Parts: sequence; structure tokens; C-alpha cells
Amino acid sequence: MVLSLLRRADQKHTHTHAGKQTHTHTHLRDLRADLCSPDSRTSSANQSGACSAIMDESGPRHGRSAFVGLVGASQVLGLASVVVTGVWMGHYRGGFAWNGSSQEFNLHPLCMVLGLVFLHGDAILVYRVFRNEAKRNVKLLHGIIHLLALILSIIGFVAVFDFHRAAKIPDMYSLHSWCGMTTLVLFCIQWVMGLMFFLFPVASAWLRAAYLPVHVFCGLVLLVMAIGTSLLGITEKLLFSIMSTYPQFTSEGVLANVLGILLVCFGVLLGYLITREEYRRPPNPEEESLSVHFKTLTEGGSPATP
Amino acid sequence: MVLSLLRRADQKHTHTHAGKQTHTHTHLRDLRADLCSPDSRTSSANQSGACSAIMDESGPRHGRSAFVGLVGASQVLGLASVVVTGVWMGHYRGGFAWNGSSQEFNLHPLCMVLGLVFLHGDAILVYRVFRNEAKRNVKLLHGIIHLLALILSIIGFVAVFDFHRAAKIPDMYSLHSWCGMTTLVLFCIQWVMGLMFFLFPVASAWLRAAYLPVHVFCGLVLLVMAIGTSLLGITEKLLFSIMSTYPQFTSEGVLANVLGILLVCFGVLLGYLITREEYRRPPNPEEESLSVHFKTLTEGGSPATP
Repeated sequence: MVLSLLRRADQKHTHTHAGKQTHTHTHLRDLRADLCSPDSRTSSANQSGACSAIMDESGPRHGRSAFVGLVGASQVLGLASVVVTGVWMGHYRGGFAWNGSSQEFNLHPLCMVLGLVFLHGDAILVYRVFRNEAKRNVKLLHGIIHLLALILSIIGFVAVFDFHRAAKIPDMYSLHSWCGMTTLVLFCIQWVMGLMFFLFPVASAWLRAAYLPVHVFCGLVLLVMAIGTSLLGITEKLLFSIMSTYPQFTSEGVLANVLGILLVCFGVLLGYLITREEYRRPPNPEEESLSVHFKTLTEGGSPATP
Repeated sequence: MVLSLLRRADQKHTHTHAGKQTHTHTHLRDLRADLCSPDSRTSSANQSGACSAIMDESGPRHGRSAFVGLVGASQVLGLASVVVTGVWMGHYRGGFAWNGSSQEFNLHPLCMVLGLVFLHGDAILVYRVFRNEAKRNVKLLHGIIHLLALILSIIGFVAVFDFHRAAKIPDMYSLHSWCGMTTLVLFCIQWVMGLMFFLFPVASAWLRAAYLPVHVFCGLVLLVMAIGTSLLGITEKLLFSIMSTYPQFTSEGVLANVLGILLVCFGVLLGYLITREEYRRPPNPEEESLSVHFKTLTEGGSPATP
């Protein structure tokens, strides 16, 4: 479609034989209208991308308030998930301590929901929220939040292994543990790869460009896996603790179910915000020309964007 | 970026003042090279889309064999999930029957994995596998496979409610049931909306175009929710049935865990195939001009594409 539009642009110029700037602008306006018509806008992603880029430049920023509302809702959902996890473990399961008891186990869900779900999601979201800030700063923030998420996740893992050892419970037999360990290992690899590829000049620019879409896809997959693993953990904990009363809709069971639904809603909202074309970082001619997208920290500063 | 390239195209024409077809093609080749350079290719989705569209047309179809391999792998994973579910329920849990017993319950996981996961995933995948076929036929296939998935899912739901009634087990108390019911209800709504918007002329072309990205996003979310709910079901079933022996790595527990991992891998592979730009349906000038993307069944045939 883009190709056919470019061809039409060429044909229009061929017919007019005019080199005046006014004509040039008229043709560009025609092209914008073609690209942004409802049919063409949704027929493929590249058109919608082109369309949003063009609309960003030529028209008012439609959907900005919707974006703010959705980001706000995602933060409410994420924080509510953390708070509900804290209330569940703190109020219903005896609170927190670091002594090998079930109180140490209680740190596991709290650390995982806070680290591998909420902070992980927000680390991805910074590319949308700060999409008009200098790319280098956003990269740094992305890496730092991920580091925090990683530290919290490791604390959460140590807590559950410590508890298992003290209580003589075997490790790594459940689907929850298999999914959780896979997610954490891949999360570590993803973080190290991101560090090497995008913050330090280990890989070539070409390799970095080739790896970027894989990094983005894997980040979203890991967020979904972290949420799925959390739901498995909720189900396991409920069946281990209140199997006999769970079917009677006890307050603890309902609270934990609500936590699961909050996590699902957080994931869906994050997925929407991350994948929606119009919320992507708009193309910046200055960054394009300097290849700032793939500049590492040691390759100099990136230009500040308005 | 696309806008700046269009502007450059205009400027080049302005400078040459020539309307000859040979010059036109030279400029288009320059533009293709610009769009497909490593830096520009990954700086935003619209460029990568434009790039893949152009590469599809001008160069050999890179990655075609990778696509075939990935689709093959997804089918192996999906079918393996169905077979493992059948073996688990058939061999370890007493087989299948429609008599209100646990044998009737056993139909529930089988129907859900076959319908709401495997067929649901494949119904989405047809848009990638048959991306060069006539759009109307692919739409029909998409709707028919989804209908099969819906029928199987409803049978699976009836089986578990029947079993609960006979065994006097309360309904809808667990996180698995909450997620499952939400997924099925949304799946029904999604199917009816798809039918109304894309197969029958209920909505205007503009409304259909606006709804399409929502439909696509929700389809993928529902597939992920179906897989997540299946994992919750696996965990529930294992803890209800073999809680005491599960930590000893019994064959049933390991088999069920492997089923969970197979489902996750199926979901990740489907997600990759569905979201990767180069596997999208290539723009077809004939379809574009006739707005076939948004033609309903009653609005006449679509032109066959090569």
C-alpha cells in the first residue's frame, strides 16, 4: 500500500512536470489523506503507523487524554494488586518475617507481584509515557526499574526456597515453580542482553537493530508469563491453605480471586498501551539522522526532544 | 520518518523537473533503500511494515521457510497439548463418559484445550497461513473454526457444571472458574461481534475499520486468557487429585506439568507468528481499491489473489 502510494506520488509528479513547492505540498496533503482514510488506516500496521505519525505532526493529539486515563488506570490496578497481596499475606496469612517460617514465605508473593509484575510492567511502560523525552534517559530509566524488579524477584525466590528448606518441602515439582523459574531465568537473560545490546557497545548497530523487536516481544511475553505464574501461585496457596472453605466463598478466597482478576486486568491494559500503534514513540528526524535509537551510553548524548 | 521520506521524494522530483518513467523508478529505488536500511527498518513499526511490504515485492521472500517451520512447530505443540490432555484424562483419570461422573468431568479439559486453545489459535493463524488467498474465503474459514471452538467450549462447560451438580460441588468459587467464565463470555461476544461487523453488513465501513484493531487485540488476549485458565485448571486438578504424591515427581504430575509448558510454548509461538510484521497479509492493490478488507459476505465476491 505504501509502495502504491509512493508510485501514485511519482505518477502525480510525472503528470504535472512542475517543480514548485506549492504543488509539492498539495501532493503531500493528498497522500496524507489517502494514508489516513479509514479503509487504508487499518489494512496493515505500517499504514496505521504512518498515519499516526502524520496525524501527530499535522493535527491535534487525539487520544492523549485517553492515554493518560489508561496509564492512570494501569497504575491503580498495579498498585491495588500489590496492596491486596500485602493485605492477603499480612492479614490472613500471619504477616512477614525473615526466619524460615511461613512468614518468610509470605514475602514471596509480595516480592513477585511488586517486582516481576508491577515494576516489570512499568519498566516497559516508560517507553510510552516518556515517548517525547530523550531516548537515552528513557533507556536508563527502563534499565534501572528492571534492575529493581530483578532484585525484588531474587529476594522473593530466596524467601520461598528458604521456607521450603526449613519446612522440608521439595522444590520445583509444581507447574507454578516450573513456570516461575523459567520466567526468572529468561528475565535475567533478557536484562543482561538488553544491557549489552542497548546500553554498552558490545553488539554492532546492525545486530542491535535486529535484536530490538525480539527484545520487545520477549519483554511482553515475560510480563504475561509473570502474571500467569502469579495466578498459579494464588491457586496453589489457596488450595494448600483453605481448600475446605474455599468453595464457601470465604473472604480470603474471594480476596485472592480478586487479586487474580486485578493482575489480569493490569496485564491486558499494559498489553494494550504497549502494542497500540498511536502510543508508540513518534519518529524524531533528529534521532533518526543520528541513529540515537541504537546509540549506547558510551557513544555520546542524545539530543533532547521537546 | 515515512513523512520525511515522502518529503524527500517530493524534493528529488522538484530538483529534477523531469517526468520520465525511468527517473521515477530510480527515485523509488532510492526510497526503498532508505526505508529498508537497518536503522530505519526498526525505528518504528510502520517503517518495518513498509519495509517488509517492499521487500515482499522487490526481493526474494526471506524467512518463508522459517515461517513454515514455525507454523509446523506450533501445530506440533498444539496437537501434542491435545494428545497429552487426552492421555492424562484417559489413562490417569479413568477415561470419558457422559454420565455425571468424574469421567464426564474429564471431557472438560479435553474440550477446552482442543476448542478454546488449539482451534482458537489456529482460527487466528489462518490469516497468516493463507495470507495470499482471497480475503473472503479466509474470513469464512476464520469464522467457521471459531464456531467449532465455541461449540467444543460450550460442551466442555456443560460437562463440568453437570459433574458439579451430580457431585454437589459448588460452582464458580475458584479463580480458574472466574477466569474461565470471563474468557468464554468474552469469546462469545467476540464471535458475535466479528460476525456482525465482518461477515454481515450491520456496521458501516468506517465502524468496521475502527473495530478491526480492537477485534485483533481482543482475539490474542482471549487466546492468552484461555491458556492461562488452562494452566490454573491443571494446577487445580493436580492438587485435588494427587496433592500428597505431586511433590514426589510422580508421572501424572510431571505429565500435567509438561502439558502446561506445551500450552505456554504454543501461546508464545502463536503470539510471535501473529504479531510479527513480515508475516502479516501483504497489501494487495486490487483489494485496497475495492475495499475488500471490509466487504461483508453479502456485498459480493472478492477478487482472487495469486
